[in-house]
Amino acid sequence: MSEKINRQWLLAARPEGMLNDGNFKQTETPIPEPGEGEFLAKTIYVGVEPAMRGQMLPQSAYAQVMQIGDVIRAGGVSQIIKSNHPDFAVGDMIQCSPGFQEYMVSDGKMVSKLPDGLNAEAVLSVFGGTGFTAYYGMVETGEVKEGDTVLISGAAGAVGNIAGQIAKIKGASKVVGLAGTDEKCKWLIDEIGFDAAINYKDDDYADQIRAAFPDGMNVFFDNVGGEILDVALNNLALNARVVICGGISRYNKDHKVPGPENYFNLVYKRARMEGFIIVDNLHRAQEFSDAMTPWLEDGSLKYQVDIIEGFENLPNGLMRLFTGANKGKQLIKVNDPI
Amino acid sequence: MSEKINRQWLLAARPEGMLNDGNFKQTETPIPEPGEGEFLAKTIYVGVEPAMRGQMLPQSAYAQVMQIGDVIRAGGVSQIIKSNHPDFAVGDMIQCSPGFQEYMVSDGKMVSKLPDGLNAEAVLSVFGGTGFTAYYGMVETGEVKEGDTVLISGAAGAVGNIAGQIAKIKGASKVVGLAGTDEKCKWLIDEIGFDAAINYKDDDYADQIRAAFPDGMNVFFDNVGGEILDVALNNLALNARVVICGGISRYNKDHKVPGPENYFNLVYKRARMEGFIIVDNLHRAQEFSDAMTPWLEDGSLKYQVDIIEGFENLPNGLMRLFTGANKGKQLIKVNDPI
Repeated sequence: MSEKINRQWLLAARPEGMLNDGNFKQTETPIPEPGEGEFLAKTIYVGVEPAMRGQMLPQSAYAQVMQIGDVIRAGGVSQIIKSNHPDFAVGDMIQCSPGFQEYMVSDGKMVSKLPDGLNAEAVLSVFGGTGFTAYYGMVETGEVKEGDTVLISGAAGAVGNIAGQIAKIKGASKVVGLAGTDEKCKWLIDEIGFDAAINYKDDDYADQIRAAFPDGMNVFFDNVGGEILDVALNNLALNARVVICGGISRYNKDHKVPGPENYFNLVYKRARMEGFIIVDNLHRAQEFSDAMTPWLEDGSLKYQVDIIEGFENLPNGLMRLFTGANKGKQLIKVNDPI
Repeated sequence: MSEKINRQWLLAARPEGMLNDGNFKQTETPIPEPGEGEFLAKTIYVGVEPAMRGQMLPQSAYAQVMQIGDVIRAGGVSQIIKSNHPDFAVGDMIQCSPGFQEYMVSDGKMVSKLPDGLNAEAVLSVFGGTGFTAYYGMVETGEVKEGDTVLISGAAGAVGNIAGQIAKIKGASKVVGLAGTDEKCKWLIDEIGFDAAINYKDDDYADQIRAAFPDGMNVFFDNVGGEILDVALNNLALNARVVICGGISRYNKDHKVPGPENYFNLVYKRARMEGFIIVDNLHRAQEFSDAMTPWLEDGSLKYQVDIIEGFENLPNGLMRLFTGANKGKQLIKVNDPI
C-alpha cells in the first residue's frame, strides 16, 4: 500500500436478494489533506451491521440512502495521523464513521475520542449503537424485570448476545437464545451465560421453544422475523412484550415477506409488539454508557467481537452477517494503530 | 307463547366458516322455579358481540367455551318477575347474562341493577363490556391525546363508534372511520361526529386512507384485521399506537389467515401494536362509568343501538354482526318489560 493512496470500497450496484461481490467496487484516490480545523485519520476498525443493506437500497424508511459510487458508509474506530484541529492530536483514537476506506478527513463533528480505559473492541460492541440498541430494546422497550423469561432470536449476533446478558443482569429467570449452528448455541451457554440455546435449523425448534417456555415467555427480543416471530407469538405469557429490533430474515428479500399469522395472540395474551430505532435515543448515549460501564467493569457483561482482517475483506465482513457466520459484533481490522 | 314454557336457542353445531342457521337449534323447557335466595327474570334485551362465535368453537384462547346443547351465552338486560331474594324485587331491571332464552333463574351473582336514570339501551351500549372496551382501548391502550389523528376500523360497530366519539372528546384533531357501506359512512359523519369516513369496499380505499393521513395516523383502533390492518401499518405516524381490539375479518375463517406483512413498519415508525381484553379490567367498571357518565349527560357521547325484535331473531341478530348489517350495538328485544 502506497502511503499516498486511499483505497475505498464504493457502492457499485444496489442489492437485489443476497449481497454479493457485484455490489462493491474497489477504487483508489489520493489521501486527502486536512484543511484548517480538520484532521486526517487512518481507519483501524470498521464495524458492520445488518441495517447497512437497507441504506444501499434506493429508499430507506429512516436512514439516508447511499448513492451508486458512494463510499460504503459504516461506523468504526480510527486514529488521527495529522491534525490541524485544536481538540484532536496525532495518535488519538476516535469513534467515528470511517466507511469502507483507509483514510478520512474530518472537522471533528460526530466524532468522539475513545473513553479512557476502553479499547476499540469494547467501544464498538458495547458503547456504540450496538450496545445501546441491546440496552434500550431489552430494558426500555422490553421492560425486562426480575423473574422474566426471555427468548432472543439472532442471539449470537452483535445485539442479541448483549441483550441476553443484560436480561440476566436484570434478573431474568431464564434467557434462551436462538442461533443457527450447534456451535453457536454451545457458545451462548458456555461463554455468554445464556440458560439455554436452540438451533433454529432443527426440525423441531418450535417444539423446543414451547418446551423451554411451558408458561410462555415474558419477553421476545426479535432480530430475525419471519417464521421465528410467528412461533414466538404462539408462546407468549400474559402481558408479554415482543421487541422488534430487527428482521434479518427479511433483509435479503426483495419480494414481500409474509407477516406474522399469529399476531392476534397479542389480544389473547394482552401483549404488545413494539419497534424502536436507536438513533432516536442517541442523545441518551451517556445514560446508556453509565448504566453499562459498571457491568463491564465487574465482569457481568462481556463484550464479544468477531474480527476479520484486511481492507480487502470489508465487503466479506458485511456479507458474513447475512450468512450467519459471525458471533458477536463483526469488525474488520483495516490497519494497526501507530 | 305459553306462560309455562321457556324457549331457548341451543348450540346445535360448532361453526365452520360463516355462522348459519345450522349452528342453532330451538327448544322448549318448563320455566324454572326460583328457590330460596333466587329470583326468576324475564329476558328483555339480549346484546350480541363478535367474540361469541369464538365461544362456540371447541377451544377458546380466553373465554369458557360452550358445549353442544348449551344455551347460547350472551349478555343482556332482564326484568325480575318472581323473587325469593332479599335484594331484588319484582319489576327490577337487571344487567346480567340471560343467554338466548326467555327466562332465567339466578342467585344474584354477576348481576347488577340498572343504574338510576339509565335505560337498558344505554347500559348495554356504553356501560357494559362494549363501552368499556372502547374506553379502555382508546384511552389506555391507544393513549389518545389532544391533536392526535385516529383511524378506526369497524367504526360503525358497537365498539368502533364509541371509540371514535371518545377520541373526539379527548381532543383528537381528526377521527376517520372505516365502514362497509356509503350509508354507514354518512351516518358516522352526520350522526356520530366522525370527521370523515371511508368505505373499505371502495377499490381505492387504501389511497383514501393515505390521503386522509398525509402525515400518518397516531392511533389505529382495529376491529377488523386482515388487509385493512396492513394498509394502516403502511400509514403510521412516528410513535403510533395500533390497538388490536378485534379481528372480525378473521372470525369466520377456519383456515389460517395471513398476518400483517407490514408489521416491520412498527420499527421504522417506532410504533407499537398491542392487544387487550376488557375482562381483565372489569374490576375498574366503576372508574370507566364515572369517566363516561358526564359525557353521556352533556350529550358529547351518544349511544347507538340497532334493535331487532323477537326471540326467533336471536340467531339472526348474532349473524348480522358478520354480514356488517348492524350500526351500533346490536340488540335483540325479546320481551317488553312489565
